[in-house]
Order: sequence, then structure tokens, then C-alpha cells
Amino acid sequence: MTEVAPASPRTTLRRGANRAVYERDRVRAILDAGVIAHVGVTTDDGPIVLPMAYGVRAGETGIGDGEILVHGALANAMLRAGRSLDVCLTVTIVDGLVVARSPFHNSMNYRSVVVRGVATAIDDPDEKAVALRVINDHVAPIWDTARPPSASDLKKTLVLRVPLAEASAKVRDGDPIDDDVDMDGPHWAGVVPLTTTWGTPCPAADLADDVVVPDAVRALGGADAHPH
Amino acid sequence: MTEVAPASPRTTLRRGANRAVYERDRVRAILDAGVIAHVGVTTDDGPIVLPMAYGVRAGETGIGDGEILVHGALANAMLRAGRSLDVCLTVTIVDGLVVARSPFHNSMNYRSVVVRGVATAIDDPDEKAVALRVINDHVAPIWDTARPPSASDLKKTLVLRVPLAEASAKVRDGDPIDDDVDMDGPHWAGVVPLTTTWGTPCPAADLADDVVVPDAVRALGGADAHPH
Repeated sequence: MTEVAPASPRTTLRRGANRAVYERDRVRAILDAGVIAHVGVTTDDGPIVLPMAYGVRAGETGIGDGEILVHGALANAMLRAGRSLDVCLTVTIVDGLVVARSPFHNSMNYRSVVVRGVATAIDDPDEKAVALRVINDHVAPIWDTARPPSASDLKKTLVLRVPLAEASAKVRDGDPIDDDVDMDGPHWAGVVPLTTTWGTPCPAADLADDVVVPDAVRALGGADAHPH
Repeated sequence: MTEVAPASPRTTLRRGANRAVYERDRVRAILDAGVIAHVGVTTDDGPIVLPMAYGVRAGETGIGDGEILVHGALANAMLRAGRSLDVCLTVTIVDGLVVARSPFHNSMNYRSVVVRGVATAIDDPDEKAVALRVINDHVAPIWDTARPPSASDLKKTLVLRVPLAEASAKVRDGDPIDDDVDMDGPHWAGVVPLTTTWGTPCPAADLADDVVVPDAVRALGGADAHPH
């Protein structure tokens, strides 16, 4: 399967279909720009949604046969709690508050990707190390600024992969869409943009004075966290 | 029930319990500072998680018997798709990238609230109008800058409430926690802060020149989107 979507009717929303964009490149751009994913699983007493760091790896033919990777204690807890490995990973970037002439049309500008699929654990240590690098380097390439992980580190870390075969993007941007009857009224309409930026790296209190900030970390400072 | 948590073992995570904070005030502060919620439901073919605007209303005795409110087409689609009205609403604010001396300890600083409960629709038009004001005014008080909603607007809008009885907060902040063996190594450690700010309001292209930006909207420009 080389197309991200519309591979599955499950990722097609009936309402708001005009905002749905199915291009693989758009899915990839949003996943690259996002910082965390909200991951949902079904448990015996209802759904649960938790925030997680993630990484994206393209497949042999591109993003369509690629995968999204998550790791850590939370993934572990979710797997234990979940009835199955069916997951939904949602990445959302809010770009602005849309203020309309009537409250009914107030909205938000945003970019969002929904990935649904079955999570599987990566057991092979070499493959796990590669996957962990992808997750660690998602926001900034910080994997190489740290010491390499030990065999014990790798053993303790659970890494899950979810195929990107069922992924869809949804984007709202631009001005509010008001009713014709309100267009000549006295009410303001427009957008208040929301921007997210990385600040100046702040050394740990217990860091030795002679350790300099790595270029990969310094480069993040002042960068737009959510490039378009 | 007047305590937000630990009312239920469902909102207590086994791992990371040291980061769990149960105070009602903390839950309230995080919900107030967040912009969107990621809402999960269980459907016949797995969980689905979608981003939604929301609002928070305290109850008679405070946040513990208060509720979280969501509305709109997405809520509608989720209700139709869901097997039940069990939902999980998660609000997360990412505050920084935590760069450790070993990749195993790389992390993020964040504030997050997880609310689990049963969603119910608000049918009474007056109650619905009040709930919609709470949702619309969550980010900034823009309800009164627009024309009042019509009876038809209200009828078309689905509003859901979820009690805050089962809510828990989780916060990670501060420096990375590295292994003792790494403390004297050559690797950098620290935090790169992430900040989100509202920009200058941008009028809609079709707005008449003589309509001024409302104070409530102007006040948002330059404000921290996620105050601590």
C-alpha cells in the first residue's frame, strides 16, 4: 500500500470533508511539524488518551508505507491497559483563533493528522536503536549529542510502531466564513494567529561549566516549533 | 463528589506516579491554560482521537463537581461512531524539550490533564447557550463581540458535557535526571523552553474598514497562550 489515504473509509469524516486533504506530502509535513501525538487506546473501562513523543519513518516507497514510532513507559502502560493493540495517534497544531461575526462560526485554524492502526513492539535491538534515534531526533537531532544508549537502556525501552497506511490530514486556515446576513453588521471578524517557538537553551543546574551547548540544540532556539 | 481526584483508580498511572499531581487547583489551571482537548472515543473499529475546542465550568463546590464542555460537528460525528458515550478528554501543554546526557533520559516538560467520563448532550436551549458561551470564551471572551446566536444556531449545535469527577493532572518540569555515571561526562544537559503566544489580530479580508478590533480580541495579541 503506497497511498496514505483514502486507503480506508475509517479516516474519512463525513462532516468537514471539504477540509480533508489526503496528500501524502501534507500528512508528512504535519507529522514533521508536530511536537507530540495524542495516542488513544480502548481499555476495559473506556477509552484513554495520553500525550507521547513520536517519530516518523518513511517506507521504501515513501510515507504511505512508512510508520509512526512511539516509546516509553506510557506506551507500556497503555499496552497493558488496552484490550487490543488498536490505536489512534493524533497530531494537532493550532495556528490561530478564528473570530467570526456570529459565535456559531467561531473556530480555530489548525493542522491535524489522524493515524489509525495496530501497534506492534519492536524487539530486535538494532532495529530498536534505529527507531529510538528517529523518535529522539524528531524535534531536533539530539541523539548524537548524548552518549550512546547502553544495551540495558535499550532493553528497558519499549518501542512501538504503527503503520501510516491509514492516515488522514485535516486543515482549516484562513478567515471565518460568516452568514451573508451578518456581513454588513458591526461585528469584527478575523484571525488571531498562534505561534510556538523554541527559546534559548537553559543548561541544567548540575552541568559542568565547560560543557558547551551542542549546535543541534542551539539551532532550535528561536526556531518556529511548527513550520508550515 | 467534591474531589477531582484520586476519585478513581482509572486516572492513576502506575508508572510516573511521582509526576502525578492531584490537586483540584492544578487541574483547573491546566484546563484554563490549554487551547484544545484531544477527545477519544471507542468505535466498532478501534479508538479514535480528535482535537476539539472546549470550555470548563466549575460546579457548586468547585472544579470537583464541575464539567468540561465540547461542541460541534466533530462531537456529533464521534457520538454517531462511538459504541458508547464513554470519552477521554486530554489537554496537554508542552513546555520544553528536555535534553539529557543519555538519550534514554531525553524527555519533554509538559502539563497535562486527563478527564474520563460519560458524555451527555445538553438539550435545554438556555443551558446550551450558557455552555456555548463558556466554550467560546475559553481562550478569550469573544462571545460578546459577536452577534447573539439565533434560535436556529442553537438548534444546530450539539453541546456535550463531561463531568470533571475523574480528572488527573500530570506535570513534568525542570532539568533532566541523568544516571550518576554520566554526570561527569562531556555531554550537554538542559532544557529548551517552548512558548506559545497569540499574535496581532488580523482582520478578515471582507471586513468593512470601520469595524475596530474588540478589546477582548486585542488583549489576546502578544499574550502567552499557556500561562503557568
